[in-house]
Amino acid sequence: ADVKKIAVIAGDGIGPEVVAEAIKAMKKTEDVFGYRFEFEHGLFGGIAIDEKGTPLPEETLAICKKADAVLLGAVGGPKWDNNPKELRPETGLLGIRKALGLFSNIRPANVFDCLKEASTLKPEVLEGTDLIVVRELTGGIYFGEKFRREGANGEEAVDTCVYSVTEVERIVRQAFEIARTRRKKLASVDKANVLETSRLWRETVNRIAPDYPDVELEHVLVDNCAMQLLRRPSSFDVIVTENMFGDILSDEAAMLTGSIGMLSSASLGEGAFGLYEPVHGSAPDIAGQGIANPIATILSVALMYRLTFGYHDAAEAIERAVKEVLDAGHRTGDIAVDKSKAIGTTAMGDLIVSAI
Amino acid sequence: ADVKKIAVIAGDGIGPEVVAEAIKAMKKTEDVFGYRFEFEHGLFGGIAIDEKGTPLPEETLAICKKADAVLLGAVGGPKWDNNPKELRPETGLLGIRKALGLFSNIRPANVFDCLKEASTLKPEVLEGTDLIVVRELTGGIYFGEKFRREGANGEEAVDTCVYSVTEVERIVRQAFEIARTRRKKLASVDKANVLETSRLWRETVNRIAPDYPDVELEHVLVDNCAMQLLRRPSSFDVIVTENMFGDILSDEAAMLTGSIGMLSSASLGEGAFGLYEPVHGSAPDIAGQGIANPIATILSVALMYRLTFGYHDAAEAIERAVKEVLDAGHRTGDIAVDKSKAIGTTAMGDLIVSAI
Ligand SMILES: CC(C)[C@H](C(=O)O)[C@@H](O)C(=O)O
Ligand SMILES: CC(C)[C@H](C(=O)O)[C@@H](O)C(=O)O
Repeated sequence: ADVKKIAVIAGDGIGPEVVAEAIKAMKKTEDVFGYRFEFEHGLFGGIAIDEKGTPLPEETLAICKKADAVLLGAVGGPKWDNNPKELRPETGLLGIRKALGLFSNIRPANVFDCLKEASTLKPEVLEGTDLIVVRELTGGIYFGEKFRREGANGEEAVDTCVYSVTEVERIVRQAFEIARTRRKKLASVDKANVLETSRLWRETVNRIAPDYPDVELEHVLVDNCAMQLLRRPSSFDVIVTENMFGDILSDEAAMLTGSIGMLSSASLGEGAFGLYEPVHGSAPDIAGQGIANPIATILSVALMYRLTFGYHDAAEAIERAVKEVLDAGHRTGDIAVDKSKAIGTTAMGDLIVSAI
Repeated sequence: ADVKKIAVIAGDGIGPEVVAEAIKAMKKTEDVFGYRFEFEHGLFGGIAIDEKGTPLPEETLAICKKADAVLLGAVGGPKWDNNPKELRPETGLLGIRKALGLFSNIRPANVFDCLKEASTLKPEVLEGTDLIVVRELTGGIYFGEKFRREGANGEEAVDTCVYSVTEVERIVRQAFEIARTRRKKLASVDKANVLETSRLWRETVNRIAPDYPDVELEHVLVDNCAMQLLRRPSSFDVIVTENMFGDILSDEAAMLTGSIGMLSSASLGEGAFGLYEPVHGSAPDIAGQGIANPIATILSVALMYRLTFGYHDAAEAIERAVKEVLDAGHRTGDIAVDKSKAIGTTAMGDLIVSAI
């Protein structure tokens, strides 16, 4: 097979530890399936601030641009929380999304059988929950003009939320396409009773919908969606929404599964290129102790194989290996019922690697 | 006692039915406690669109402005959902908030013992949940400039989110004051890692905090708050946030209690004036059938007595009456386990009235 270039951005906190296990899993799929990867590492986030004076160094961006896919660990931590804006890890995160044109964030929220009990929702409510939040990632209030000004009553701050028809159309079409490969249900979330951007969003969705007659569409107001996710999580299939709403709802959806340590995400641009990362954060409190759960990052590799490379056999092998290891009762501390029996990051990685 | 003027806006759907029971309860407190009320009714929402061609007629606004407090049922319904903006019920809602200067929305989310099972959350997670969301109600992206324009890539829509220091300060001070009367914990919710309005929000909160050294303050990012509400609802006491985040989080908080048919809300301006309404909507599907649950509206009266009039004795009598009737096992259809034993709106109202 031809060699695929992978940009590896381990980042901060537990990032390097979990990424190391994901790379081990990728190497195992080289042996088993004959795929070939070339890894190039880049500094990003807090560590890049410390070593290069910027969260997103030019070299790192160049490595990503040359790559076929990016594997990201996690960024951020209290150390940089009070830095000025240009020197904060999340500025790097927003920067890399924009620079790589990653307009779509895909967040599957599904329930792992062995973790049903970890959710704060009743098991019978959660039963069958398997949804994907498709979040617009390079527009909206995140990237609109922001400034301070002197108003009639003193100092004011302003954020601007902008969406073009083109931006809405590309993310919504992608969501329709994803729904087609699943249970064929799409919930478009907006606040069309208040926001102009939401009215444009809804008009655009309605204009496009006839192209996907096989997909059942519902419009849900964002406040109602926050409620329905709690009331009937299993009724959702694909949810598509704008950047800010997606930030909130995807985290709510992730938490309700009880599987937050296991969830992976993809940020996609035009074409097959994508950035893959676990949903969980950098967990600075447990960094360096070898106890972090590497499963979400390993499953991000499976997502990469499916969405960027079409390596469905290897993706399935990874997913099956994870299931096997969990079914055999192995747990890292975050998901262990009996914490005294918990295994470490490397041990979990090794078990999954040998099960591939 | 002096006569208090109450503007009554029954609105649409089940609004008139539930408001009628709340008025019965108010009249009973006239008899029992010697308070005196004068009711003046106004058209609002869908019914005002139908009869007056506008969701918020001038007469209605005048009635509210003359009143000491407003009692609102519910507004809206599918009939008006596709109307142009000026002819939609929610335009009336936004209009009345602005016209009456109701900058603060108070939404208690607590668990009723008899409804613990109605929540989709596990009872042990919910145990002890008793929080209040204080939502800024007349600023932010709801009221900023909105327009369409031709951009580089075709049509665009724009919403503007604006907050002044003054607006943030008055809502945050109110939230600190409320926290003082409770468990003395305040969670301020923002997205300060992305939004300029949130950075101004957080700066303002931090500047004011030293005036309330007895209140424990935490800053929570909105996405994290959506998660923590699910993970540790009972750890929150008072949550204060801006308009759009408050819309989403207060609905999420209401739903997780399982008590959505029972929750009341207050919208307050400067001074003691306030508008009181149930959290639930107009439920057009069950309107006119005499089966709606009037408890949230009756409890809104108790909230009015406490926050606008300082009638704590009557407020307590209402709250105790509701508890008594529920403890005796009476249920409307929405909260009945055995639907065949459910009682109607008037019967529930009568029971509560006689228990006052
Ligand atoms: C860190 C922050 C800027 C970021 C966002 O809001 O997009 C994060 O919450 C996420 O969801 O990836
Ligand atoms: C109807 C709508 C405009 C309103 C809002 O978003 O404020 C409603 O959701 C609410 O919370 O009262």
